[in-house]
Amino acid sequence: MTIADNDTPVTAGFLVIGDEILSGRTKDKNIGFLADYLTALGIDLKEVRIVPDEKGEIVDAVNALRRSHTYVFTSGGIGPTHDDITADSIAAAFGVPIDVDPRARAILEGHYPPGELTPARLRMARIPEGADLIENPVSKAPGFRIGNVHVMAGVPMIMQAMMDAIAPTLKTGRKLISRSVDADLPESRLAERIGEIQETYPDTLIGSYPRATDGRFTTQIVIRSRDETLLAEATAAVEAAVADALGRQA
Amino acid sequence: MTIADNDTPVTAGFLVIGDEILSGRTKDKNIGFLADYLTALGIDLKEVRIVPDEKGEIVDAVNALRRSHTYVFTSGGIGPTHDDITADSIAAAFGVPIDVDPRARAILEGHYPPGELTPARLRMARIPEGADLIENPVSKAPGFRIGNVHVMAGVPMIMQAMMDAIAPTLKTGRKLISRSVDADLPESRLAERIGEIQETYPDTLIGSYPRATDGRFTTQIVIRSRDETLLAEATAAVEAAVADALGRQA
Repeated sequence: MTIADNDTPVTAGFLVIGDEILSGRTKDKNIGFLADYLTALGIDLKEVRIVPDEKGEIVDAVNALRRSHTYVFTSGGIGPTHDDITADSIAAAFGVPIDVDPRARAILEGHYPPGELTPARLRMARIPEGADLIENPVSKAPGFRIGNVHVMAGVPMIMQAMMDAIAPTLKTGRKLISRSVDADLPESRLAERIGEIQETYPDTLIGSYPRATDGRFTTQIVIRSRDETLLAEATAAVEAAVADALGRQA
Repeated sequence: MTIADNDTPVTAGFLVIGDEILSGRTKDKNIGFLADYLTALGIDLKEVRIVPDEKGEIVDAVNALRRSHTYVFTSGGIGPTHDDITADSIAAAFGVPIDVDPRARAILEGHYPPGELTPARLRMARIPEGADLIENPVSKAPGFRIGNVHVMAGVPMIMQAMMDAIAPTLKTGRKLISRSVDADLPESRLAERIGEIQETYPDTLIGSYPRATDGRFTTQIVIRSRDETLLAEATAAVEAAVADALGRQA
């Protein structure tokens, strides 16, 4: 892992592929995982898209994301069945041929007993020309990287293992650090002061997140910055604003 | 609710707005909820995007989605704080003015004690010109509909109540019905037969979903159709394929 030069932000887009997420049959667990993972690396996840198992939709989304971000990650659609069309779609997006890859074939041949590498399973060795393989320690069928796009499985356990394989190859940004302040107040009681603090500290990102707990509204204010000193100053200002609003309420 | 004419599919896009989802601080619960909700109504959710609290990103995503789908739903960014910029962004996307709406102002005046409708809270009454309000029974500050775009709160309890208010106004498609078949086999053992069944029944959608449970791989096959008879036939074919594969394994 290398820190990017000049504090250039390193950004990412994430493409989730699968009818089952859009129908509600499967509840996605990969978005929250990847968001946490990239934040920890200092990479800003800037956009997520979920698209169905349709080639045109996958191609358009991959091409939009790979042009806008340092990295793109995808999950889903690289299994052995007829609806697993991610690899072919990525090849189409890059305009390169795709065929059974000898490296991937060797991995699968080593994994299945003799005679069990059926044509369906061999589909999992189809890799776009010019791609590197991403190791899958869980079930062997590899993911791949082509250009700035990392193609992973949709099963969370496998996707997470693939991210661990990818992470050391990524350049990372200067890490965004954060502090949070919990306020036992609805956010509308704090909004004006917090807005003023945001204006005073433009190099911080201040988010205000309302919560409904047992029918009562409370607020969490999260302050983020790449600079420790600014972060400490802005956090102190937020804490003072919360104390002041609580005092006025009492 | 009316059934769309000629079985035209009714499609939807969902835009989730918020830095907190992309940073991982908040784990989204609205995508799974809306996917289930729209599937139950016979509306096909075809695309989801998650974007940060940045006006340009919100405008571009809303404009892309509203041109591609019958309906668009958004969640997040309609509270009282400086980072709540959804209403202004939607107005910009539609090219209409935005100001405090007298109907929304009246709702908030009825809700807060005299003198407590602060400028920050009044921000929640900013509604694009020409929009209808969406009732918020939980915390009163309304959502709104403009054109085919429905703008809702991000707090799940409020978003869900707003969907209940919206649902009777939506036209719905002929409902996609589904059956599922569980197979105690990895999906690669079924993939070829399932692919053949999909080809035999092009008016069904057959999905194959691998699961890892206690380190063992099993598969759920989901068959969807708008036609009961085709659904029953394709499901029977899948059940026969699974029984056959289990028999060969035993």
